[in-house]
Amino acid sequence: MKLNIAILPGDGIGPEVTNQAIKALKAIASEFNHNFKFTTADVGAVAIDKHNDALPEKTLELCKKSDAILFGAIGDPKYDNDPSAKVRPEQGLLKLRKELGLYANIRPVKAYKTLLDKSPLKKHIIQGTDISIYRELTGGIYFGEKHTSEDGNYASDLCGYSREEIERIAHLAFVAAENRSHKVTLVDKANVLETSRLWRKVVKEVAEQYPDVTLDFLFVDNAAMQMILNPKQFDVILTENMFGDIISDEASVIGGSIGLLASASVGDKYAMFEPIHGSYPQAADKGIANPIASILSAAMLLSHFELHNEAELIRLAVEKSLKLNITTPDINSVVNTVTTSNVGDFIEDFI
Amino acid sequence: MKLNIAILPGDGIGPEVTNQAIKALKAIASEFNHNFKFTTADVGAVAIDKHNDALPEKTLELCKKSDAILFGAIGDPKYDNDPSAKVRPEQGLLKLRKELGLYANIRPVKAYKTLLDKSPLKKHIIQGTDISIYRELTGGIYFGEKHTSEDGNYASDLCGYSREEIERIAHLAFVAAENRSHKVTLVDKANVLETSRLWRKVVKEVAEQYPDVTLDFLFVDNAAMQMILNPKQFDVILTENMFGDIISDEASVIGGSIGLLASASVGDKYAMFEPIHGSYPQAADKGIANPIASILSAAMLLSHFELHNEAELIRLAVEKSLKLNITTPDINSVVNTVTTSNVGDFIEDFI
Ligand SMILES: CC(C)[C@H](C(=O)O)[C@@H](O)C(=O)O
Ligand SMILES: CC(C)[C@H](C(=O)O)[C@@H](O)C(=O)O
Repeated sequence: MKLNIAILPGDGIGPEVTNQAIKALKAIASEFNHNFKFTTADVGAVAIDKHNDALPEKTLELCKKSDAILFGAIGDPKYDNDPSAKVRPEQGLLKLRKELGLYANIRPVKAYKTLLDKSPLKKHIIQGTDISIYRELTGGIYFGEKHTSEDGNYASDLCGYSREEIERIAHLAFVAAENRSHKVTLVDKANVLETSRLWRKVVKEVAEQYPDVTLDFLFVDNAAMQMILNPKQFDVILTENMFGDIISDEASVIGGSIGLLASASVGDKYAMFEPIHGSYPQAADKGIANPIASILSAAMLLSHFELHNEAELIRLAVEKSLKLNITTPDINSVVNTVTTSNVGDFIEDFI
Repeated sequence: MKLNIAILPGDGIGPEVTNQAIKALKAIASEFNHNFKFTTADVGAVAIDKHNDALPEKTLELCKKSDAILFGAIGDPKYDNDPSAKVRPEQGLLKLRKELGLYANIRPVKAYKTLLDKSPLKKHIIQGTDISIYRELTGGIYFGEKHTSEDGNYASDLCGYSREEIERIAHLAFVAAENRSHKVTLVDKANVLETSRLWRKVVKEVAEQYPDVTLDFLFVDNAAMQMILNPKQFDVILTENMFGDIISDEASVIGGSIGLLASASVGDKYAMFEPIHGSYPQAADKGIANPIASILSAAMLLSHFELHNEAELIRLAVEKSLKLNITTPDINSVVNTVTTSNVGDFIEDFI
């Protein structure tokens, strides 16, 4: 298969972890005789520094003519504490999601057998956890109208949702559940929010088309608690943008490290793959960043093109690296641990 | 001291747990020679059933002429799954908070020594945790304009904040930090939300008046993760309404049961005390509801009136009941466990 893959390494640890994912993809290409072409472009703080634009036109164009996008990470603390900054790295990511119509962010959460002891949660709580989070990604309070009063003493953000926005991701979630354990949990705050009540109404209607899938509901505050008390109760979680952001980062503790969690952001035309961890600037260029999340994102990319054997081989390689403890310090307590690229090399070789 | 205390038991397990708190307060009154007068009124689903109003005028009046309010719990599933319901139990609670100007919800989170093993988190993670969450309670997306389009296919909620709303709770949080470990963590989503950027700006300004308190910032997604990875890093957490709702319910797992967590909701004129758990209707009238959260809310009430010895005695009684395993099934694995009122009786007797 021929695939044009846009590489957007971004900020902080983004470039180093993405490099390891590319190694894995190249190894797959040579092993399975595929033709993967990689083209790199700027996004985020690096793009602001170079072009004064978090998502330069050139980058967006590249994405639109590529078959898939592999994304690194975004964000730089120099912008976070400056409430008046007019350009922000995150705008690059948000604009990309919006422009490419990537309305569904899919985040698998799994407790790896070999890592059960690394989690802050007790083994019997997490053992066997296998969740797929469907987070709406191009609507809600992220993209609603923003407003600051002239004197700067009042600010607002609007959270809006339309039936269509809810329906399309709901269908994806139910289809996923049909191929999994047949359960969808809608996480919302329907006792307070009008948008949540619309979500409940629409999702209930969609559910009727999937009679073999059970639908249940959980308020987001309760969900945040249940995720830790009993994560095994979940199969597919469906939720809006902001709640999905919070719940999925929280769920990362189950795996023992956020450095393991991959994600796919898909729409009707485009698809992007990225680790859910951030740019983690304090760790940049130290060789301590965990490349697994990025490598598993590459596996999700392959699955997206029905290259299931290829994806499976990457996953096997990852499990092998975990088993052999060829892992970065976040999940390795041995003092003399391996570096980001050691992990990448091992996985490349294994493939 | 003479105190008029309004009792609003509410729904589900609300009445039974509140009764135990009243027992404790009565025991304190007779032991310390205080004069506590209790007057009960309806709120929530019971109030809707009786008066078709989640917060009847009479209840509000009672609250306004009382010195403090002891609140049970609110909510009934028959309203949750009916997106078109016009009256909802939660409106009673929200209106009460708003009308009484209870802008600061204070939620202490502690790992009790005797309960370290009950938490889903590993002992070394939670041991020594002592957090005080300051959640803004009368602003943000809870109270912003709500809208549904005529055809019912679009809905929105507005999240707004003014400088004053942020300042007043920020001061309370910093004063609290001065008497604790001198650290405030602002939880927000300043990389996306305009309101969060206002929070950062205003809280930074307020921080200048408290030079011996350190201020740091955490995005809410990261905070949801850090709360589980390393809760000991937190002292005072300051955050807006919705994030506070989620983070504080999540934090309840540290104590091993949400049935232990008390809260105070205070404003410039009034103060209300309530367990953070909900009405848990499935457990109602079974004698299995944990009354500790309500009893500790009564202790917070006493502290509020500077009755520190009295509050301390309640806390001692609670610790004793935990130590002796005189506890409800949520934190007691022995088959033949004690009931809600057994716990209340023990604490009453101890006092
Ligand atoms: C960087 C930030 C804007 C982003 C988000 O909140 O969506 C990130 O946290 C994520 O989850 O991908
Ligand atoms: C019942 C509900 C409206 C309420 C809230 O969201 O504030 C509850 O969850 C709480 O935290 O007190």
